[in-house]
Amino acid sequence: MAEQRIPRATAKRLPIYYRYLNILLDADKTRVSSTELSEAVKVDSATIRRDFSYFGALGKRGYGYDVPKLIEFFKKILNQDQLTNVALVGVGNLGHALLNFNFHQNSNVRISAAFDVNDNIVNTVQSGVPIYPLSEMGKQLRDQQIAIAIITVPENTAQEVTDELAKADVRGILNFTPRRLSVPDTIRVQNVDLTNELQTLIYFIDNYGELLGGNEKSQD
Amino acid sequence: MAEQRIPRATAKRLPIYYRYLNILLDADKTRVSSTELSEAVKVDSATIRRDFSYFGALGKRGYGYDVPKLIEFFKKILNQDQLTNVALVGVGNLGHALLNFNFHQNSNVRISAAFDVNDNIVNTVQSGVPIYPLSEMGKQLRDQQIAIAIITVPENTAQEVTDELAKADVRGILNFTPRRLSVPDTIRVQNVDLTNELQTLIYFIDNYGELLGGNEKSQD
Repeated sequence: MAEQRIPRATAKRLPIYYRYLNILLDADKTRVSSTELSEAVKVDSATIRRDFSYFGALGKRGYGYDVPKLIEFFKKILNQDQLTNVALVGVGNLGHALLNFNFHQNSNVRISAAFDVNDNIVNTVQSGVPIYPLSEMGKQLRDQQIAIAIITVPENTAQEVTDELAKADVRGILNFTPRRLSVPDTIRVQNVDLTNELQTLIYFIDNYGELLGGNEKSQD
Repeated sequence: MAEQRIPRATAKRLPIYYRYLNILLDADKTRVSSTELSEAVKVDSATIRRDFSYFGALGKRGYGYDVPKLIEFFKKILNQDQLTNVALVGVGNLGHALLNFNFHQNSNVRISAAFDVNDNIVNTVQSGVPIYPLSEMGKQLRDQQIAIAIITVPENTAQEVTDELAKADVRGILNFTPRRLSVPDTIRVQNVDLTNELQTLIYFIDNYGELLGGNEKSQD
């Protein structure tokens, strides 16, 4: 794409914009001002205007933004016109919840294969997703051309699983374990650290007192 | 506390430091260099030194940091010397997984009450946690003096639940729903948006190609 090097903070807000624009369209709303959008997504309207300007999407004064046009725009940017299959590694409590979590409802992303070592679930279909033995992970990922994996394995096996994922040419890992992973430069890791989220929240409440300021700022 | 206004980016890294220092101590390691710590937590060592300097925790050249001292330090800052009870609102698939998720293992945080509308689980104990009817939420939160809530309710009830939490004087919300919540300034909301995390990961892979750069940068 020509518009490659947009700021990461902007990139992180794109899915939020995309989702809300779809909600607006579902409600038959075909235009929106940056102020309205700002109120819905909790991002200040100057930031929204700057974000949109990276893509050349310019609202008209007194009219706002054309919702269907913006949706088409973000759909392409977010690659939402084609399905992305992802793998889940580790089908414990959290893994099961993620299999049931309807990613596909809000996005064109689908968990299409899962891996575990538990003989009771291996070679069964759980919540519509086939569970393969962990020993077949490399082969299956390559065969199915899956480039993204969610890992919800025990912390002490996280790095080992990651090394296997790297060998299978995975490009992105959503890491739910508390372990920080070592990966080659060809892989992007995004950490979702639930204990960390709670502790940070507590820290802010204890230390920022009256200045909590509602939603976390978009640049947090 | 005197050290109130540290940068938010620093605040977000504190729980990561705290956890790794405890891992080091468990392995009988009583000192650590900023380089070693950097490798473990995937934060560059200049950032670590700057973060620590906000708290006056200064390593000695050629010695590094004293692990037990740092732990005591962060324990106080993170309020880890006292238990923080949190509530869970919405005991569906993800809620169940969070009840089973061992927050307490890595932190002094515990889910001590949960709320739902499902008569099959209300007034039972699930994974050691009592489930109360949602209608009793305000009363229970006040009686138990719980100031932090995790919400895993359906998206269309998220704002209503949030309004009830605000009435019950909750100070912090960890929001797992995709809805952005409206809250008074006295409440801090931290969003954990799983669809968004996946979409952002995909965006980076599609658009940053060879420059994925391993772990997300701490300032992301």
